[in-house]
Amino acid sequence: MSKSDKHKDLWRVGVAGLGTVGGGLLSFLAARPGFAPAGGRAVITGVSARSRSRPRAYDISGLPWFDDPVALAISPDTDIFVELIGGSDGPAKAAVEAALNAGKPVVTANKALIAEHGAELAALAEARGAPLLFEAAVMGGVPAVKMMREALVGDDIVSVAGILNGTCNYILTEMEAKGTPFAEVLAEAQRLGYAEADPTMDVGGFDAAHKISILAALAFGCAPNYAAAEVEGIDQIELIDIRLAHDLGYRIKLVASADRGPDGVLVRVHPSLAPLSHPLAQAGGALNALFIEGERIGRIFVQGPGAGAGPTAAAVAADIADVMTGAVRPVFQKPAGDLRPFTPVDPSRNMGRAYLRFLVKDEPGVIAAVSETLAEVGVSIESFLQKPAESAGGVPIVLTTHAVAESVLTAAIERIADLPAVLDRPRLLRIARI
Amino acid sequence: MSKSDKHKDLWRVGVAGLGTVGGGLLSFLAARPGFAPAGGRAVITGVSARSRSRPRAYDISGLPWFDDPVALAISPDTDIFVELIGGSDGPAKAAVEAALNAGKPVVTANKALIAEHGAELAALAEARGAPLLFEAAVMGGVPAVKMMREALVGDDIVSVAGILNGTCNYILTEMEAKGTPFAEVLAEAQRLGYAEADPTMDVGGFDAAHKISILAALAFGCAPNYAAAEVEGIDQIELIDIRLAHDLGYRIKLVASADRGPDGVLVRVHPSLAPLSHPLAQAGGALNALFIEGERIGRIFVQGPGAGAGPTAAAVAADIADVMTGAVRPVFQKPAGDLRPFTPVDPSRNMGRAYLRFLVKDEPGVIAAVSETLAEVGVSIESFLQKPAESAGGVPIVLTTHAVAESVLTAAIERIADLPAVLDRPRLLRIARI
Repeated sequence: MSKSDKHKDLWRVGVAGLGTVGGGLLSFLAARPGFAPAGGRAVITGVSARSRSRPRAYDISGLPWFDDPVALAISPDTDIFVELIGGSDGPAKAAVEAALNAGKPVVTANKALIAEHGAELAALAEARGAPLLFEAAVMGGVPAVKMMREALVGDDIVSVAGILNGTCNYILTEMEAKGTPFAEVLAEAQRLGYAEADPTMDVGGFDAAHKISILAALAFGCAPNYAAAEVEGIDQIELIDIRLAHDLGYRIKLVASADRGPDGVLVRVHPSLAPLSHPLAQAGGALNALFIEGERIGRIFVQGPGAGAGPTAAAVAADIADVMTGAVRPVFQKPAGDLRPFTPVDPSRNMGRAYLRFLVKDEPGVIAAVSETLAEVGVSIESFLQKPAESAGGVPIVLTTHAVAESVLTAAIERIADLPAVLDRPRLLRIARI
Repeated sequence: MSKSDKHKDLWRVGVAGLGTVGGGLLSFLAARPGFAPAGGRAVITGVSARSRSRPRAYDISGLPWFDDPVALAISPDTDIFVELIGGSDGPAKAAVEAALNAGKPVVTANKALIAEHGAELAALAEARGAPLLFEAAVMGGVPAVKMMREALVGDDIVSVAGILNGTCNYILTEMEAKGTPFAEVLAEAQRLGYAEADPTMDVGGFDAAHKISILAALAFGCAPNYAAAEVEGIDQIELIDIRLAHDLGYRIKLVASADRGPDGVLVRVHPSLAPLSHPLAQAGGALNALFIEGERIGRIFVQGPGAGAGPTAAAVAADIADVMTGAVRPVFQKPAGDLRPFTPVDPSRNMGRAYLRFLVKDEPGVIAAVSETLAEVGVSIESFLQKPAESAGGVPIVLTTHAVAESVLTAAIERIADLPAVLDRPRLLRIARI
């Protein structure tokens, strides 16, 4: 963006991708034709999508149509390119690169693109002097990106942890509220449009991993390193674990976290037990929630709707407004040339508390055998709960441990699974460090 | 700020006021000599305070000293003026005006100044092309101002409500936890340095009123109108109300709120009852917490430390970083010329639920008399609690009402107070609309 672009009276916005977010943005700007939060007015002057003729709730007949998003991105009539196509590669990446190469500011909601190619795109954006903004990529209408990139530069962030996928949170909330198993709740969510036909990105934890990788990069001034994230989804969560966790005073949440330590950065997405009284445990339904911990600021908590046309389009509109201010700052808080992929911490050395659940034979001496085995490998039991046998299949045992290294925990699980009185492989869930 | 100032390598920062926040800022920049979040480096090149020789935890001997903050503000060696003196008028206002008049960007933590003179200062700042930023004025390290001014421009805000004064929140939390009356907790807080020697601004609700007036201006695009805020502090809160509210499922919090309706804007600070399970009720100690409700975004909740050297200095540092980006946007989300003082809603027409507590004679027919009186004026009782007489002084009665107009409530209180069996004037507390 050249300096002469500053203080423009009119900013021509090209929008590629007319799904939920694109539709929300068009509706918003149609309802607010005078949208000029930084002085100049933003007007949509071109759109691109897969199908021009698909029925839509808003009128695009008066807008120039581009079959090719790259053509829209580099059109001389596009001052700001908004990428809402999605996907880490393909047309989304091609169009964003084309816009940045042409020195045009880019606003995107594409978490996969930023998490997987953020460093190279940041380098390109900064080389061309074009802003690259992606508030809508994380937590929808909650300005998590702005908080990390702009508001907290006066601190050193130690950790971020939260609920970043509304679909998983909705499913877990429904499972608990209705006592309905995962597969049934997922099917209902798909029927209602809350979950995608292919739910893997959401329920597998990958969407949350994209988002926490972006937040980690902003928090720690490193390049996003999606490949290094440890990811576990919620598709293996059973009702019995939700119930037993509750008996122990916890609620199961899909927690995404990034921690900075002396040895590097640990980025994880796990089903995790949060104490019932904890704000993360109380963020139900499709809510997103995030804790940010800084050395000076202490802990900030923010919560809100993480998806949906209204919130996400509002985030895109705020990014458009930011472009119009002419602000120049690094894409990831540090200039792209200074970003290095973070050193992932060896997860086997990670310390944490754990929840283990397994079935044992209903016979004397079993608990003693389990406790001795855990003691031998160095796992200290914090609480122990034996439930009455629900069937002839065995007695459910659940225990929580004090903090223990992941490698020790893995060894303990192997040893327990090998005990003659233990009927299945112990189910492991982490207790959130929050 | 002229365009030639953009992309400076070095930004010379003058800091007036070396109290908690100023000390925190000097310590931060001393610990981070390379602080350059937007490319250029920020370096303190001048300080001003009441006493040069006062013992301080950080070294100012190498910094040019200014007896007069105005001289520092207009010094040719000052690129950014940071005002941490405090007070709505006097040297703080004079220095800020002098800096803006000279076209110098101003960063301030001064809520009184912005709440009482924000519109005129915004006009001056925009006329001179100088940013005026005040993140640290509200909620310390929580970026409430940035959220309202920048992140939520893509929405229309309906209401904001929260806990904006950490001292009051600490006092209320301690009163409940320890069963200690207000005066004792206040004295202890003063001894510990958590409350000022003159606590009026805090416990009288005026500090929270400054802050909510600023948030209202940012939320609704109006000029701050501190004079129109309704303010009630916590100095009349008694332990019996904390206990009775708890029995009814509520916790008493000092809630500051701003609501936009068809008739205007209502800005209030009140001790209010929040349901025990509500996030505002759970924000204890010195925490600040805020709900923001937008037409499209829905409800966003944010919580964090509202005061202290670390968080507040981090907010000032973030504002300094924002100046360095060269962003140009209106001080209050709308250009100053478009800001109009908001139309205050007639509070007597405001609808809300209420808590009433009073003493009655221990004799038959009293409850009937109270209920009939309330029914006559049109107040509908939601819950009713009669506690055993604690002394010969009478029986405590507490009741909550359904939503009722303030004028009707006032009339009801007069009528109840006049009943022969009622021994004192009913104590009125609002139930938070959250």
